[in-house]
Amino acid sequence: MRLRLDLAYDGAGFHGWAAQPGLRTVEGTLADALTTVLRHEVQLTVAGRTDAGVHARGQVAHVDVPAAAFAGLPGRSDRAPTEALRTRLAGVLLRASVGGPRGTSDLLVRAVSEAPDGFDARFSALARTYSYLVADSVTAYDPLQRGNVLWLPERLDVPAMQRAALPLLGEHDFLAYCKPRKGATTVRELQLLDITRKAGLVEFTVRADAFCHSMVRTLVGSLLRVGTGKRSEQWPAERLAARTRDGEVVVAPAHPLTLERVDYPQDTELAARARRTRAIRTCDCEPG
Amino acid sequence: MRLRLDLAYDGAGFHGWAAQPGLRTVEGTLADALTTVLRHEVQLTVAGRTDAGVHARGQVAHVDVPAAAFAGLPGRSDRAPTEALRTRLAGVLLRASVGGPRGTSDLLVRAVSEAPDGFDARFSALARTYSYLVADSVTAYDPLQRGNVLWLPERLDVPAMQRAALPLLGEHDFLAYCKPRKGATTVRELQLLDITRKAGLVEFTVRADAFCHSMVRTLVGSLLRVGTGKRSEQWPAERLAARTRDGEVVVAPAHPLTLERVDYPQDTELAARARRTRAIRTCDCEPG
Repeated sequence: MRLRLDLAYDGAGFHGWAAQPGLRTVEGTLADALTTVLRHEVQLTVAGRTDAGVHARGQVAHVDVPAAAFAGLPGRSDRAPTEALRTRLAGVLLRASVGGPRGTSDLLVRAVSEAPDGFDARFSALARTYSYLVADSVTAYDPLQRGNVLWLPERLDVPAMQRAALPLLGEHDFLAYCKPRKGATTVRELQLLDITRKAGLVEFTVRADAFCHSMVRTLVGSLLRVGTGKRSEQWPAERLAARTRDGEVVVAPAHPLTLERVDYPQDTELAARARRTRAIRTCDCEPG
Repeated sequence: MRLRLDLAYDGAGFHGWAAQPGLRTVEGTLADALTTVLRHEVQLTVAGRTDAGVHARGQVAHVDVPAAAFAGLPGRSDRAPTEALRTRLAGVLLRASVGGPRGTSDLLVRAVSEAPDGFDARFSALARTYSYLVADSVTAYDPLQRGNVLWLPERLDVPAMQRAALPLLGEHDFLAYCKPRKGATTVRELQLLDITRKAGLVEFTVRADAFCHSMVRTLVGSLLRVGTGKRSEQWPAERLAARTRDGEVVVAPAHPLTLERVDYPQDTELAARARRTRAIRTCDCEPG
């Protein structure tokens, strides 16, 4: 039986998504909580393997559990077992939470649902959307939001960054924007790279079918060079065309990056989408 | 020479505004930074003496400095000395900051200006405005905002709270909503108590000429009892009329409370306003 988990987390207290021995990670913390509640070891599969410090509001994962472990959940008979699991996980994750005020969690399971046939959190996904927030003047600095906003002393030229972003859209080999891994393609389809000024902050919204490792932060880092006038508007496209990973690479800091949402096709398309994605991408490197 | 300082801070790392030996406080941290930059001991006066854990976006303080210390600031000749002081303070406060990502501060001096004649950050103020944020459903819980939002498992009845708040408006003796201090009046003018649902959160906006100690948190705590159906809509007004401070007092948690702004009269009215306020309030207890 496959369960879909919708997740949100504050990345500050985690060494990224992927489980690592001796380090607090989202995967490790969530797997421990599931094991505690279900009394069964589980293996998680996730849509976006976020890096250390990166947050999520709309992360999606799946986990396969024996129907017996799931049905055996103690709880009120008037509640769906998925809702009973969500509530039990909330309690365990609250106790496992780090920092922040009492009664709040840094990792939250927003919803638990039975996954439709063919659903794979990673390979069925059509697109991932990330946001990246920048405050480019002292009046926009807000100490209450400092955990997920980059503070820049220089005013950004948003129209120049927008023009520089345009030629990056579409399907390209993003080698210059990726930390490549052996045997993995760096071809991706960049579907949206929007930059807007909103409530005093500059917000980047970036969507692709998938991202290779550190791709969003390298795209944003390169555009910030344009926005502060250190590079020409043509430079990001020239980098793309050069297809080299060299000393010119600029990776923006992790803490202003948030995985906002993951899009999936209609239920009838889930299995076909997963087969197609698997054939193209063998890379183990969702994103950052 | 009197300087006005406009401040913002994340209250999580501070034991409130007021300096206390051996504890990190906003007043203590800011006074140390001013002493470092001006090479002169200073005494701060503040509009809102926030409690431990309470944040500020629009706090105002003043400080008297000898013109010599101020004029002697090293810096670029093309910059006003107030701007030179702001920049120097930013550097010192960044190094003194606690927690959070690199390059961000938990205490920020947004602006330094020469105060107009008769200005007193505390006694010239016409009004203080606080906000208090509550998430009353799992879908509204956002781990990225958990530092300044109260998480409640029960859905709040906003119209009921609005009706309960109405009779509290105006000038009253708020003894039931104050931690009283000797020789200090607990009469205050509550100018605004607005409760709205905004982007999934319930936001309280509370404005008064001044607040006595823990008054905002007691008002909010009492209204939350109404919003969750634990008390009648008449209860908060009955408490006000009873003028007693007893076991029924409900003080809401500190971390969702933020001092948003302080209002002052026109420059020509500053001194008169300060004289009038001084005569009425001898209380040393701005607010929380």
